[in-house]
Amino acid sequence: MQADLRKHIEKIIPLTDDEYAFVISHFISKKFKKHQYLIQEGDPVKYSYFVISGLLKLVFTDAKAKQHIVSFAMEDWWESDYYAYFTETNATMSLECLEDTEVLCCTLEDYKKLCEGLQKMERFFLDKATFGFLGSQRRIISWQTSNSKERYEQLLKQYPTLFQRVSKSLIASYLGVSRETLSRLSS
Amino acid sequence: MQADLRKHIEKIIPLTDDEYAFVISHFISKKFKKHQYLIQEGDPVKYSYFVISGLLKLVFTDAKAKQHIVSFAMEDWWESDYYAYFTETNATMSLECLEDTEVLCCTLEDYKKLCEGLQKMERFFLDKATFGFLGSQRRIISWQTSNSKERYEQLLKQYPTLFQRVSKSLIASYLGVSRETLSRLSS
Repeated sequence: MQADLRKHIEKIIPLTDDEYAFVISHFISKKFKKHQYLIQEGDPVKYSYFVISGLLKLVFTDAKAKQHIVSFAMEDWWESDYYAYFTETNATMSLECLEDTEVLCCTLEDYKKLCEGLQKMERFFLDKATFGFLGSQRRIISWQTSNSKERYEQLLKQYPTLFQRVSKSLIASYLGVSRETLSRLSS
Repeated sequence: MQADLRKHIEKIIPLTDDEYAFVISHFISKKFKKHQYLIQEGDPVKYSYFVISGLLKLVFTDAKAKQHIVSFAMEDWWESDYYAYFTETNATMSLECLEDTEVLCCTLEDYKKLCEGLQKMERFFLDKATFGFLGSQRRIISWQTSNSKERYEQLLKQYPTLFQRVSKSLIASYLGVSRETLSRLSS
């Protein structure tokens, strides 16, 4: 499966050919191999990424060097260390390929130009940011109200294909449970 | 303390007097007493609220009738059941006053008119939605990486005044710990 940026945007707002040409001129395409890093903790964050194909993990490493998966990103998803991206600070997370991955990359400067040059795109990003916020809020409620078995089942229902693409250790890290607990849940 | 919508917006984008007059014409003011509900679970969600003064709790009630505090909202904060508001579905959460509260209310229709009529406001809401998303992401990372004592200390550091305004039971519900655990943490 390959994502298509135009179709992705047009789920929310229609674009003319000229408008799409304007949009795509603000992105560059890059390809990465499995295990390569798009963002390294401590480095500046140059891009926001739209995933054309492949799979990424956004990882936060705690003071005890334990890795926690903040999110997975696959086709049709946007990902970055957005706090660092928008505030122009260094990354506190890392973004690594779990599969060979192709992305479209947009600098903060180009993101701003895109919003200023085409109000439709500002509306598109407002919609994305709003539903990104709502998705995170649902995940917080899920942490508050559900045990690990329920969180596992919610994830399985929401992203059935993820379970064929990533290891159980990574699913465990996303859910905040041990590998042993996850084996018990998924058996 | 009273919040001021114009000052609040102008932290992000400057407005002329005419622009602010246009903005404020999309809001109505309402006052509520302590314990009154702004949103009841199961009802349509008519407004997004900007808090002028007072304090609110956004509550999700689980299948076992246990209440979980999703967020607190005080002066200078925006609050609603935003999923229900934006999708025009019924509330899955409730919003209740913890103090006498004054809010500015904006319907979804007025929100859209505001964004269409003044591009600056779309930029303002994009900024708010982006940083709302980033705040939620930080809270998820905090659930993944911190124990309840650390989460308590983070909250105390972030919102020192909250601890003078709400009961320990409510803080416990927000942190997802029992009242007994919280007493141990805060002693």
